[in-house]
Amino acid sequence: MEKTKIILDENEMPKKWYNVLPDLPTPLEPPLDPRTKEPLTPEALEPIFPKELIKQEMSDKRYIDIPEEVLEVYRLWRPSPLYRAHMLEKVLKTSAKIYYKYEGVSPSGSHKSNTSIAQAYYNMKEGTERITTETGAGQWGSALSLACNYYDIECKVYMVRSSFYQKPYRKSLMNIWGATVVPSPSSDTEFGRRILKEQPDTPGTLGIAISEAVEDAVAHDNTKYALGSVLNHVVLHQTIIGTESKKQLEQEDTYPDIVIGCCGGGSNLGGIGLEYIKDKLEGTYDPRVIAVEPSSCPSLTKGEFRYDYGDTAEMTPMLKMYTLGHTHVPPAIHAGGLRYHGDSPIISKLHAEGLMEAVSYDQKEVFEAAVQFARTEGIIPAPESSHAIRCAVDEALKCKKTGEEKTILFNLSGHGHFDMTAYDKYFEEMV
Amino acid sequence: MEKTKIILDENEMPKKWYNVLPDLPTPLEPPLDPRTKEPLTPEALEPIFPKELIKQEMSDKRYIDIPEEVLEVYRLWRPSPLYRAHMLEKVLKTSAKIYYKYEGVSPSGSHKSNTSIAQAYYNMKEGTERITTETGAGQWGSALSLACNYYDIECKVYMVRSSFYQKPYRKSLMNIWGATVVPSPSSDTEFGRRILKEQPDTPGTLGIAISEAVEDAVAHDNTKYALGSVLNHVVLHQTIIGTESKKQLEQEDTYPDIVIGCCGGGSNLGGIGLEYIKDKLEGTYDPRVIAVEPSSCPSLTKGEFRYDYGDTAEMTPMLKMYTLGHTHVPPAIHAGGLRYHGDSPIISKLHAEGLMEAVSYDQKEVFEAAVQFARTEGIIPAPESSHAIRCAVDEALKCKKTGEEKTILFNLSGHGHFDMTAYDKYFEEMV
Repeated sequence: MEKTKIILDENEMPKKWYNVLPDLPTPLEPPLDPRTKEPLTPEALEPIFPKELIKQEMSDKRYIDIPEEVLEVYRLWRPSPLYRAHMLEKVLKTSAKIYYKYEGVSPSGSHKSNTSIAQAYYNMKEGTERITTETGAGQWGSALSLACNYYDIECKVYMVRSSFYQKPYRKSLMNIWGATVVPSPSSDTEFGRRILKEQPDTPGTLGIAISEAVEDAVAHDNTKYALGSVLNHVVLHQTIIGTESKKQLEQEDTYPDIVIGCCGGGSNLGGIGLEYIKDKLEGTYDPRVIAVEPSSCPSLTKGEFRYDYGDTAEMTPMLKMYTLGHTHVPPAIHAGGLRYHGDSPIISKLHAEGLMEAVSYDQKEVFEAAVQFARTEGIIPAPESSHAIRCAVDEALKCKKTGEEKTILFNLSGHGHFDMTAYDKYFEEMV
Repeated sequence: MEKTKIILDENEMPKKWYNVLPDLPTPLEPPLDPRTKEPLTPEALEPIFPKELIKQEMSDKRYIDIPEEVLEVYRLWRPSPLYRAHMLEKVLKTSAKIYYKYEGVSPSGSHKSNTSIAQAYYNMKEGTERITTETGAGQWGSALSLACNYYDIECKVYMVRSSFYQKPYRKSLMNIWGATVVPSPSSDTEFGRRILKEQPDTPGTLGIAISEAVEDAVAHDNTKYALGSVLNHVVLHQTIIGTESKKQLEQEDTYPDIVIGCCGGGSNLGGIGLEYIKDKLEGTYDPRVIAVEPSSCPSLTKGEFRYDYGDTAEMTPMLKMYTLGHTHVPPAIHAGGLRYHGDSPIISKLHAEGLMEAVSYDQKEVFEAAVQFARTEGIIPAPESSHAIRCAVDEALKCKKTGEEKTILFNLSGHGHFDMTAYDKYFEEMV
């Protein structure tokens, strides 16, 4: 009897995060000071991040221990299940085996809790009393609200305006866990007030929300800023996804030919993919690793690989990454979590080095796959994660044509329980 | 290291449902024909239910095999995890051990899928092409939508009007899985039209919605009706919850002193409780089993134990149960799933025989416990399930006073991701 869920026991949960930095074929270009354009010193980041996270951001250690206190919270939902998509395979009539790692089992409903818990923990250790952040679709804001609640830290979330109104219940969720949420641009920061005056009708962007959250953190005592994607330490904390998935696939006596993740800032893709990129770099295996992005915000597939600001107000360090330009305003698409102008420097480097592919899909194709998935596997996927589903389905259909029995692994990074307006719109547009 | 989640492997999933009927201390009173008041023949139920379910409704077999095709779908989320509530215990500073069985892991987010899958399966086997039903909070309607989708059966849901507007996204969810949803009373049935004329502003009730769904089923070819609680076969399908939980507690070398479930129609309470009631009846153990209901719809705590109709239009068989009267209109409370005038005959009998206790709480106390739970265990509980949390917390606080180390088990029957308006209202009322 083939299994549906491949489960690890709590004591099989990885106790280390995998840091790809020392393994990269060429060193990552350093972040630059936004004013001087000189490489940043770690000290320059201390007004906004705790020291331990800055250390992780630049670490050359291959493995970093996960603190016992973080493991304790992880155990609320980790190890997360790996599913064999029997029902989807049957409907597709594919010869491929499709597996998905389901990160929607975390209380906040996505992979974001893997890093929010770690970030809040290190902040607590260093005495931070308040954390500010931005959120797009709301997954990151929810995850950080829950994490701050655990470590008794106040949490203020700047939520991209279009998502704030499209997803009112994400705000309710953050409120339940004790956070304060405002639509961005807001009147709570100087930069927000400026944007509100210049572009009163803007749907907002992650870039603007980041600027507001950083300004707020710098302006207040004992306040730090937390980012939910892009940075090296964030990607690091997500690697537990891939490490678990490899152990689970070993139980199935298989190894993936293709590893797929949606890509906004790049953290869930790095989370599922770096464990397998490690094997490519070591030469033991050679799986394809695919980033999937929306065609309306195609940073990897159509952006330029160059230094750019992480935010709109040019307050953050400059990062070498694929970017559409830091003033780019993508349309208010349903997958708000993928509306970022840039990409993780790690993901960008791997793509530039030819170690990772990138594809893009438009919303309609993505929601078609989402509904097909919901009607077979049952789970309602987040619009972001549905990009990965679309790609997995297409790869499985290719196998159907060729008769190949490939093993496809994708990361189902979150559920879509707070994205019903997006589904409603998809159905309306179909009529 | 004490575990947080106690997990069973798929091959440890129970393969039989437990039928309490032959074990009851006195036989269950039969359902009566609503017109003649004579005991019903099985044949009289055939216009609305498939034969196999009617057989289960009246079966004297102690165990009934779960069909392999049903087990296959169950494996999408079952066995469900049993959690040790370490975080909640810590905050309560209780000497009690609190465990909860989490049924929110099903795709539809509650225990209801345990019976919807079984009911849709037996209907499919007997050639049903369309199923009608009612839903209160929307948990049952969602679960049946998903189930009908699996077996290619059309699904029409009459959703209690107050919930239809309080929980618009429940409708979206049912639509994703392919069902049609209308607010009840609706203009689609004769009874609905009559109520709309007589009481245009009614918030609706489960009793009215049941009448509409039954009328629709009787009026259309190849159409049957499905009920999400109350009846014996529904309670039967839920017993897998309790059976799993006992195996899981055995792994922890413990047995519950107290077993708690919220109670609307009684199926989730029966689901967690009957496995332990069986032990009481056999004399091997003597746990307390507690039904928790809202003080605004207190059928067990304040109702009468007598024959009553299951619906408002007096179309369903009469059942011997605790009831507030079949024309009772409870206020539009947040826990819409508990707004039923009656109770399962099995639960009613057990309560009347002194084998089960019942308590009631008002909404404010319930939401206080829900928020405390969300801030410790992370999971956002459904308002219905939060009644069980409230009771578990109170029992744990009693232990704190006495220093007793009791083992408390409750059923967390569903998550509250589609109940954010209820939480919003709770916070507004607090201000």
